[in-house]
Amino acid sequence: MLDKDRLFPTDPAVRSIARGLYDGVRDLPIISPHGHTDPRWFAENEPFPDPARLFVTPDHYVFRMLHSQGIPLEALGVPRADGGETEQDPRKIWRLFAQNYHLFRGTPSRIWVDHALQNVFGVTDRLSAQTADATYDRIAECLTQDAFRPRALFEKFNIEAISTTESAIDDLKWHRMIRVSGWGGKVVTAYRPDAVVDPEFDGFAANIQTLGQMTGEDTTTWAGYLAAHRARRQVFKSLGATSSDHGHPTARTEDLSQEDAAALFARALHGACSPDEADAFRGHMLTEIARMSLDDGLVLQIHPGSWRNHSVDVMARFGRDKGFDIPTRTDYVRALRPLLNAVGGEPGLTIILFTLDETAYSRELAPLAGVYPALKLGPPWWFHDSYEGMMRFREMTTETAGFYNTVGFNDDTRAFCSIPARHDVARRVDCGFLAQLVATGRLDADEAPEVALDLAYRLAKQAYRL
Amino acid sequence: MLDKDRLFPTDPAVRSIARGLYDGVRDLPIISPHGHTDPRWFAENEPFPDPARLFVTPDHYVFRMLHSQGIPLEALGVPRADGGETEQDPRKIWRLFAQNYHLFRGTPSRIWVDHALQNVFGVTDRLSAQTADATYDRIAECLTQDAFRPRALFEKFNIEAISTTESAIDDLKWHRMIRVSGWGGKVVTAYRPDAVVDPEFDGFAANIQTLGQMTGEDTTTWAGYLAAHRARRQVFKSLGATSSDHGHPTARTEDLSQEDAAALFARALHGACSPDEADAFRGHMLTEIARMSLDDGLVLQIHPGSWRNHSVDVMARFGRDKGFDIPTRTDYVRALRPLLNAVGGEPGLTIILFTLDETAYSRELAPLAGVYPALKLGPPWWFHDSYEGMMRFREMTTETAGFYNTVGFNDDTRAFCSIPARHDVARRVDCGFLAQLVATGRLDADEAPEVALDLAYRLAKQAYRL
Amino acid sequence: MLDKDRLFPTDPAVRSIARGLYDGVRDLPIISPHGHTDPRWFAENEPFPDPARLFVTPDHYVFRMLHSQGIPLEALGVPRADGGETEQDPRKIWRLFAQNYHLFRGTPSRIWVDHALQNVFGVTDRLSAQTADATYDRIAECLTQDAFRPRALFEKFNIEAISTTESAIDDLKWHRMIRVSGWGGKVVTAYRPDAVVDPEFDGFAANIQTLGQMTGEDTTTWAGYLAAHRARRQVFKSLGATSSDHGHPTARTEDLSQEDAAALFARALHGACSPDEADAFRGHMLTEIARMSLDDGLVLQIHPGSWRNHSVDVMARFGRDKGFDIPTRTDYVRALRPLLNAVGGEPGLTIILFTLDETAYSRELAPLAGVYPALKLGPPWWFHDSYEGMMRFREMTTETAGFYNTVGFNDDTRAFCSIPARHDVARRVDCGFLAQLVATGRLDADEAPEVALDLAYRLAKQAYRL
Repeated sequence: MLDKDRLFPTDPAVRSIARGLYDGVRDLPIISPHGHTDPRWFAENEPFPDPARLFVTPDHYVFRMLHSQGIPLEALGVPRADGGETEQDPRKIWRLFAQNYHLFRGTPSRIWVDHALQNVFGVTDRLSAQTADATYDRIAECLTQDAFRPRALFEKFNIEAISTTESAIDDLKWHRMIRVSGWGGKVVTAYRPDAVVDPEFDGFAANIQTLGQMTGEDTTTWAGYLAAHRARRQVFKSLGATSSDHGHPTARTEDLSQEDAAALFARALHGACSPDEADAFRGHMLTEIARMSLDDGLVLQIHPGSWRNHSVDVMARFGRDKGFDIPTRTDYVRALRPLLNAVGGEPGLTIILFTLDETAYSRELAPLAGVYPALKLGPPWWFHDSYEGMMRFREMTTETAGFYNTVGFNDDTRAFCSIPARHDVARRVDCGFLAQLVATGRLDADEAPEVALDLAYRLAKQAYRL
Repeated sequence: MLDKDRLFPTDPAVRSIARGLYDGVRDLPIISPHGHTDPRWFAENEPFPDPARLFVTPDHYVFRMLHSQGIPLEALGVPRADGGETEQDPRKIWRLFAQNYHLFRGTPSRIWVDHALQNVFGVTDRLSAQTADATYDRIAECLTQDAFRPRALFEKFNIEAISTTESAIDDLKWHRMIRVSGWGGKVVTAYRPDAVVDPEFDGFAANIQTLGQMTGEDTTTWAGYLAAHRARRQVFKSLGATSSDHGHPTARTEDLSQEDAAALFARALHGACSPDEADAFRGHMLTEIARMSLDDGLVLQIHPGSWRNHSVDVMARFGRDKGFDIPTRTDYVRALRPLLNAVGGEPGLTIILFTLDETAYSRELAPLAGVYPALKLGPPWWFHDSYEGMMRFREMTTETAGFYNTVGFNDDTRAFCSIPARHDVARRVDCGFLAQLVATGRLDADEAPEVALDLAYRLAKQAYRL
Repeated sequence: MLDKDRLFPTDPAVRSIARGLYDGVRDLPIISPHGHTDPRWFAENEPFPDPARLFVTPDHYVFRMLHSQGIPLEALGVPRADGGETEQDPRKIWRLFAQNYHLFRGTPSRIWVDHALQNVFGVTDRLSAQTADATYDRIAECLTQDAFRPRALFEKFNIEAISTTESAIDDLKWHRMIRVSGWGGKVVTAYRPDAVVDPEFDGFAANIQTLGQMTGEDTTTWAGYLAAHRARRQVFKSLGATSSDHGHPTARTEDLSQEDAAALFARALHGACSPDEADAFRGHMLTEIARMSLDDGLVLQIHPGSWRNHSVDVMARFGRDKGFDIPTRTDYVRALRPLLNAVGGEPGLTIILFTLDETAYSRELAPLAGVYPALKLGPPWWFHDSYEGMMRFREMTTETAGFYNTVGFNDDTRAFCSIPARHDVARRVDCGFLAQLVATGRLDADEAPEVALDLAYRLAKQAYRL
């Protein structure tokens, strides 16, 4: 199914350059420094259940597209918030997916699924109503084999290191279990403190209490609260963490006085924050956490600008993460100034910034990353983790920020089988972009292989300290 | 004048794929589901008057560009609001156009005019000061022939169905006349209720009164007002309408309680709305009309984001639609939420959304259309009805929304002779885009012809229920 | 080092068209109608001091990129605001630049520096740690020769006319010195009145007093203040000026009554303006100066939308213009309306508008320039003075504004040796763009050479009246 020259430039001479560059990076190990795979997979190493639960039900890219054409989420087996009935027959779900596979024409999901079907499961025919059952049977049969258990796939995928993401108050038991299992796969965690830095998070006060219990700090005080963060970060570090991750509605940062921050924290604890105060608190915590990073070396990731759970109805019936997270216009110049003025000049700090608003690439993000020592640009994120998205990213950031203020690729996925596909897409697109530079005299032929290696492997490893 | 491979990719192998796809759709009938042609043409079937009145005076794309270089609108025969003197000699107007034809280099107007001159009127030499008179004479001679009357051109253009757009309080007499004429051309109307949903529209209160008279409903009450809309929609449907159309300054929607809506309507009737209240009323009416669509099946089109009549002086001297409508930054995520929360999950409803703000394609529109069942994306609109505009549309929406949350092409024009040209451009660009996907392994060669057909014909027909 | 076909399209047939077009414009004289070269160079004609002071220390494109990777500005010899110690050894600075030259891969700085090294100084090896000293020695040796003094380079660069930019209260002594020197090079000034139109400018009141002294007008009154502007503009015109230039944080314009303007001026003089009033005053002055332009014929340039000196720390330690100027989202439709309503219909006036916000190209700027007679679009500016930036500019403006509402290229630089490189890039990119139009049937082959000439030479000369 897969064209061996896919995603390369079409001009034969340029394609040939791209192919040569790609040959040099295709088989490099995968560094996956940010994502949402489940550490339980690697801890327990149980087989994945069935094709539908591997490819359809947990993948919001897939079920949102099917839903957009009127297919009820229930029919795809997406669990209801009230525990009510949904389709349970994986073969029926799979057939619905297969019958509507044409909806994915031209999308990255199509590339990822085709790639996984062919390279992981050895499927050779395009998915369709006609091939649905045969494909299902093939995958289902594979899943019974030890070679398709999580750890075996991890090794087959040639993953050198992968980071999952856990809540600051997660007990990290799966990560501990991986550590003591004796298995050599490098699976690390990342510190995601939304539950304890966002006053609007469900159960914020209780979460803070839990944080206190976990650390022995008095988290009813500002000082104790900060100390508890520091303590949890040490625990995360002990399980391999090299980064924290922050997903806020906006890129707002603040650098309040410690007095003002303490007062805001007290209001937050009592549920007394206005929406603007909650936003200010989140924004201030980015700066606090950047200061912690200066001490403990964790890399700070910021993922701003998604309007979560846009549909009230779907949120009520199915809960979060159902494909209704919509990007919004995001300002960075004003929003990041308090943070950057506090710590942006620190060459020892790494802040990796993502965006869902591509208009900021050339206007704001490349100029900021092109001058502040602490700031680096994360790869195209979410909807932009795609051929066109990656091409626009390079075209709109390279001239101002260069390659070396970016950090290579990360997959940001919970769809395990898509990981090799996603890294392969990134390597192909970057090699195609570099080939275009070489062919138009913007990069020397002898420099391109080094840059290709940097983008495919070295920059992610270095930026994330993996 | 026309290159037979125009608008195709330049790489020979990709061009060959594009040419093959185009050969399969080139001669398909035209579905023109939204536009502004004059139904009177088809009702009366009188000859078009002269080349200037066909190509220059009514086409705001053409006269705005000439005006931008200092040519007074009077010299182009554009009628003055005060009825004062303007150029009346069509040949003089035509010569001015011809002398300045170089201004259109690289613009879609150039493509459309060249296409019409060659394919409709058999002109073979590029328009210029030198060829002005000969071209004029040729067109003028054609216009005296029956084969160049509106109905004959309609058939020559291979139009399967065309929709005009009429005000909710239009008497629709030309559409009735077409119906009773016995002519078989499918010309339908569309319901455009600006005059009776926009409290800031000239003569709003009087328009509401007219609406009451036309329907026998008491439009001084909220209930009667809604009933009158429903009644007019039935009349429009009886004359073929399958859609309504809404052009608001922003994409704002509201979903007020019936009490609040009734109160706002009362204020609007008394001219007591603040600008914000007027905007809220318009926004609420989109949701009301979507609910009517659920009942009567009319498709809802939204065309937001144009700052109309930017020049006070030109508005005063020449009136509306003189090329001074300028796109503005448009938010969709917050603005459409009330509407989408009310009816966005209805698979039986079709809302077709347009934009003049291309930054919303990848950031907002594709993610919204890629998940809400009721929402589809209209084709690139107005200034973006062009090669680059169409290419950007596909590049920025396909990966997230796919092809099947878009609705094919519509021309949105009042320039009759440009219709075949515009559809031809769309077919060429889409085939070129598909060829690029095939050549880069993002779409299989056997799938592309089906998608080409969908984009050129089937999707418009299906989405607009024509 | 330089590929002779660099920046051309890669398809061989299209490249061949591009090459042909470029051959016709490559050797045209340079019109440089806007920039920041130092008139003192041409007045005194002293040798440039050393390679570091020619290429690194004064070029914010270069030192900001080095700084973004953690290199202290002090190590690059950038002067400190407090006069404190910085690196003084030009060879050490040069080596640091050379060791980090890979950071510039894919950036325009790389193209400009390579071009200058090869074409001006005859260097043949790529800059690197290995070649640092040899390159340094070569340049340093050249700089001792008369052929590398400013006037000789001006002639070697084939500059037909260049404009510098001086403050309204500059004494213009270097320009006078050039005039009386007998040297034939055309170096003109441009009127930059920030210091006397921006109430927030350092020493605004004192500057206004100076303006009064220089002109003999009573600048404590609104009438005297306006008269003083007119008088200074005459002096600037006597030294060749054909334009004024305005760099505001936003594109806001106002058209206040003379009474209101006078009152605001009085508040400004007394330092009593709120930030909004200061912004309103700057905005009103654009309209006043446009009215002056109607009388004296100076072209009005607007460069809006940069957030200057984003880093408080770097501003305190090193002062302005240190690479920390970050573009912001800029509105034009509402902002320019007062100005355009006042003078936008004047065909005798030329307002040249620039942007750092590329999202405005297709949405706002092309539609505005495509209809208002007075408005023209300046070329891609600053971060967008690059291959991709220029390509996006043409792709996003041409279809709506055409070529003839744009004004060719200007370099906007203080890096003298980059001027031929920058104009060469613009000529190559424009020829590549035109070749693409020809190859896709959007422009006739016989029209393209004329457009190429217009873009490379004629439009700048005409728009700037040089």
